Amino acid sequence: MTGPADAWRARLSINQATAETSGTEELLDACVAAGVPAVAPWRHKYVGGDVRRTRRALDGRGLRASSLCRGGFFTGTRSPAEARRDNRAAVEEAAELGAPVLVLVCGPVHDGRPVAAVDLIRAGIEDLLPFAADHDVVLAVEPFHPMFLAERSAIVTLDQAVDLVERIDHPHLGIAVDTYHVWWDPRLPQALERAAARTVSVHVADWLVPTPSVLTGRGLPGDGVADLAGIVGGLLRDGYEGSIEVEVLNEDVWATPVGALVGDIRTRMAGLLDGLEVVA
Amino acid sequence: MTGPADAWRARLSINQATAETSGTEELLDACVAAGVPAVAPWRHKYVGGDVRRTRRALDGRGLRASSLCRGGFFTGTRSPAEARRDNRAAVEEAAELGAPVLVLVCGPVHDGRPVAAVDLIRAGIEDLLPFAADHDVVLAVEPFHPMFLAERSAIVTLDQAVDLVERIDHPHLGIAVDTYHVWWDPRLPQALERAAARTVSVHVADWLVPTPSVLTGRGLPGDGVADLAGIVGGLLRDGYEGSIEVEVLNEDVWATPVGALVGDIRTRMAGLLDGLEVVA
Repeated sequence: MTGPADAWRARLSINQATAETSGTEELLDACVAAGVPAVAPWRHKYVGGDVRRTRRALDGRGLRASSLCRGGFFTGTRSPAEARRDNRAAVEEAAELGAPVLVLVCGPVHDGRPVAAVDLIRAGIEDLLPFAADHDVVLAVEPFHPMFLAERSAIVTLDQAVDLVERIDHPHLGIAVDTYHVWWDPRLPQALERAAARTVSVHVADWLVPTPSVLTGRGLPGDGVADLAGIVGGLLRDGYEGSIEVEVLNEDVWATPVGALVGDIRTRMAGLLDGLEVVA
Repeated sequence: MTGPADAWRARLSINQATAETSGTEELLDACVAAGVPAVAPWRHKYVGGDVRRTRRALDGRGLRASSLCRGGFFTGTRSPAEARRDNRAAVEEAAELGAPVLVLVCGPVHDGRPVAAVDLIRAGIEDLLPFAADHDVVLAVEPFHPMFLAERSAIVTLDQAVDLVERIDHPHLGIAVDTYHVWWDPRLPQALERAAARTVSVHVADWLVPTPSVLTGRGLPGDGVADLAGIVGGLLRDGYEGSIEVEVLNEDVWATPVGALVGDIRTRMAGLLDGLEVVA
């Protein structure tokens, strides 16, 4: 069944990394003003450093948490005990916020061998899953752009994420598809088809030309060359039912007053998604 | 048949992009002093702007040109007529230099659809091949890191390069494998096996952590995390018989006096490759 052409509006969310230098309550107010119904909080940005205050700040404004960023780092950048403790805390915080999804940045490769870290990631996820299920929080494996292999994630293609998630095959495990991280892949059409049924989170950022920075060089939707409507529209047509988060790490974006920024993002997303067929 | 453990030394080459800010004759003198037998010239760095003078500068020092950089850009960043004229000039210059290989940077994707540019690349290569064969110059498709998709090359995985080269299947067409561009790939082991018989040029640079810049953030061999010995050693064991070029685009490297730099590179490559089994 398809819904009205603008059904995506009820699913729009601002990922807090888009407003890294703004206060959290300031971002929430901007979302209310712009008619954006959800945000994806980051754990270092809780109101007063407190997850319960953050939940109250959301509830008081009628906003939802679409996901929580982030858990993961299973590959040895911290001790297994520390990773386990911190990831369980993240799951509890997601549940406290009412966020249905905890995004996993799985952790980088250390030794130059891109395949070696995946076993650690699988073990870490399998260890965390029962706890996540108890809290009814879905873990989302986010494949990162290959340029982050040595700093953030050993999972650098959508196919790898699908392989991992299919192998574990658990109802509380899915995939986070970020347009910025996957748009370049020559296997993207086939990988998106494979991923659609397992996708539980969608992030949108554009690829700027030239790329100003490895980490904070991402573009607002429409400012770059990635086929955002193709990627997001394809997932929506294939039955993706979750939120659509705009996540743009960029110092120029951070310098924009957050009220104007959130309104601008909503307008840009309308330009991309209005008229796309959406499964209701 | 395997050769002596240091057989790679006769095949070492300095790609001129490693010494971008040094004079060409200065680089050639440094290679002679360090016992490096070859360089890979770039077209904008000919001695006096003249290819024949460059050939004489090589010959007078007993040096070889291992490849010429670069041809390509088939995807519409310049007119087809201009690309055709310039690529034929590059082939003639490679022949004039005695360089057995012309490296192709195939050209970027413009429209956000990573698969769309490959047809233009295939047509451009097919058009150039008879001319290259007449001059006995081998064209080398170089897959680039995915972060260069929108600025340099629509070919961003080694598998893509093998697919393209197998499809055209011409004795004057092969692959240039650059460790910096391919090391991240979760399919690398299988892709290298596929690529070995078609590989005609090998470039070595390391992946620095953190990555200081998208274009000029490459590392000298041993300064980063890529498995250089694994990649180069694998190609050598599988029968790769061409040169091993060190190509490091990095402003700190460029600021090093070129005599010391070339000696340092030779020492680093000995650390990586001494003792590897090499097909003689």
